[in-house]
Amino acid sequence: MAALMKSVTVRALKFSSAASFRSTRCSKTPTLCIRSFSTVMSPPSKAIVYEQHGSPDSVTRLVNLPPVEVKENDVCVKMIAAPINPSDINRIEGVYPVRPPVPAVGGYEGVGEVYAVGSKVNGLSPGDWVIPSPPSSGTWQTYVVKEESVWHKIDKACPMEYAATITVNPLTALRMLEDFVNLNSGDSVVQNGATSIVGQCVIQLARLRGISTINIIRDRAGSDEAREQLKALGADEVFSESQPNVKNVKSLLGNLPEPALGFNCVGGNAASLVLKYLREGGTMVTYGGMSKKPITVSTTSFIFKDLALRGFWLQSWLSMGKVKECREMIDYLLGLARDGKLKYETELVPFDEFPVALDKALGKLGRQPKQVITF
Amino acid sequence: MAALMKSVTVRALKFSSAASFRSTRCSKTPTLCIRSFSTVMSPPSKAIVYEQHGSPDSVTRLVNLPPVEVKENDVCVKMIAAPINPSDINRIEGVYPVRPPVPAVGGYEGVGEVYAVGSKVNGLSPGDWVIPSPPSSGTWQTYVVKEESVWHKIDKACPMEYAATITVNPLTALRMLEDFVNLNSGDSVVQNGATSIVGQCVIQLARLRGISTINIIRDRAGSDEAREQLKALGADEVFSESQPNVKNVKSLLGNLPEPALGFNCVGGNAASLVLKYLREGGTMVTYGGMSKKPITVSTTSFIFKDLALRGFWLQSWLSMGKVKECREMIDYLLGLARDGKLKYETELVPFDEFPVALDKALGKLGRQPKQVITF
Repeated sequence: MAALMKSVTVRALKFSSAASFRSTRCSKTPTLCIRSFSTVMSPPSKAIVYEQHGSPDSVTRLVNLPPVEVKENDVCVKMIAAPINPSDINRIEGVYPVRPPVPAVGGYEGVGEVYAVGSKVNGLSPGDWVIPSPPSSGTWQTYVVKEESVWHKIDKACPMEYAATITVNPLTALRMLEDFVNLNSGDSVVQNGATSIVGQCVIQLARLRGISTINIIRDRAGSDEAREQLKALGADEVFSESQPNVKNVKSLLGNLPEPALGFNCVGGNAASLVLKYLREGGTMVTYGGMSKKPITVSTTSFIFKDLALRGFWLQSWLSMGKVKECREMIDYLLGLARDGKLKYETELVPFDEFPVALDKALGKLGRQPKQVITF
Repeated sequence: MAALMKSVTVRALKFSSAASFRSTRCSKTPTLCIRSFSTVMSPPSKAIVYEQHGSPDSVTRLVNLPPVEVKENDVCVKMIAAPINPSDINRIEGVYPVRPPVPAVGGYEGVGEVYAVGSKVNGLSPGDWVIPSPPSSGTWQTYVVKEESVWHKIDKACPMEYAATITVNPLTALRMLEDFVNLNSGDSVVQNGATSIVGQCVIQLARLRGISTINIIRDRAGSDEAREQLKALGADEVFSESQPNVKNVKSLLGNLPEPALGFNCVGGNAASLVLKYLREGGTMVTYGGMSKKPITVSTTSFIFKDLALRGFWLQSWLSMGKVKECREMIDYLLGLARDGKLKYETELVPFDEFPVALDKALGKLGRQPKQVITF
């Protein structure tokens, strides 16, 4: 990203067709490369940039970025929409183990339309819808220039708010259902933070496989409504964190089997609840810590109940170089969203109102739908 | 065990050779079976019995048990030695998830000499040394009568204090090194409670495989001596729980690789230390909770460090019916003990002094060697 921040001396050129974007090759002589008139440049871009790590509402600002060259293997994408995910906030805060170098543009996923392509780009054409896949930093800007290999062409029939958000949360839910325990139709899973987008995706993706879900939600105003919303998505049971008689898990579960797999994105007592619901030999996967409290486990849970505790981090999974698998799963998830089989609530916010969307994403205005910036 | 407590009306008979122990078969008529004069009976036995669950020093007592019949597939074993393990204490306390029915004889492992065999026993003869393998309840008594299949004949060349104790602790160490992480020569493991017998076995069994050990011991009087004892067994590093600079694990480890596997038998802060030493993607196996404190883990340990937490319970492993594997490993471990390659401290205590041995095992008299009752 730092490169994008440097001043660029060549003026931006605007073209109306893909053909116009073919650049001539610079000579490879050791002298300064003088760009010819037909060098392809992106339009100037507006971006949400942070120049240091810290609270996003104090360190981010809107920056006008000058045009950048669209090299022979590059694709210039006009962004359509990009979400504000909790992980985006964590990256800006600098709490991730690998800090992106600053200055950087925020955002990690999104959807855009191909605006221009470099001379050697064959697989994409202007007008195509693409997402960065695996996702990559810098989606909170109007024009993004990255190599063709970054972009995955998607079906335009999928609503853009789903295309913009399909990777970080739905793919996490899918991988967590696949990677830890061999689940069969008739099995069940338990999760806390069930109202999160990942939680909602877990409910729907599990149901498509014949797997029941036991869902734990926080006790707060509107929890009855949340319970009904989750049931409408296919949740089998929805309990609040203060549900009584949790010691007698089997009676709470009724005819549902004890879950072999649990998901924790809260920590503290809500994580202990997931452990209580798990059957002997079950596995709890932690993928978030919304309460900022650690997970406390009794010795007997390990020895006598044979529980296993694991963690999941999508970025780590994506770093394994599984680009093909990633894109196949994205297409599967986009198909579900297109067909109305995968639903979650988003709120579209114009780019100009980014500060309001950020405040909502930061939880300053109470519980809000996933904020998706539109460009 | 309850059967052993019933009064038996047939007088004990004593024989001096195996041949004398062959019993005649009772007729299978539905009338009362009248035993013939040559029915084989065990000698009367003295046993440590508990009739209810509770603190072992208040609920156990020495009981004289009448002779029992040695049936055609049974073997009567004159016990030589049996240890008091923490798990024996837990069973008597009733804190195990499956409580043995009471009244019951204490003890779970030990070594004995075959005293008499039933008419259909072919694989064992009087004078053979045997251990119950997999271990089974009721070794704290002078004569034990169980089916031939319970007993595993062992090499008499192994010192009896090792034969008596080879299963519960050394086999736990061996399984934990084998079952969770694929370790290669040059790797390392970390453990707390390193002065325990399991801990000492981990050090020696790891060393035989070219695996280094990082050992954490409690801060208390004698910890310098304990450190030297562990180093003499082959420990690569021994740190106390209050070791400074634990934040900079790599500098503490020097040339040792970060461990991929850790063992926890303490809980609380000592478990957190094991987690700190583990490398990214490492696994901590909990097999005890000496501090009676739970294990607390940060969310980031799961998500960013990709740690996995598991549990190990030998009884559960043994219940998988792996009798052959179990006995092969026992023979391997007994061979190591015989050859002086597996050492740990035990204290032999005559059966008459059981209460003193129990007090020592309960920790009433400070740190003591493993108590092994001799009969």
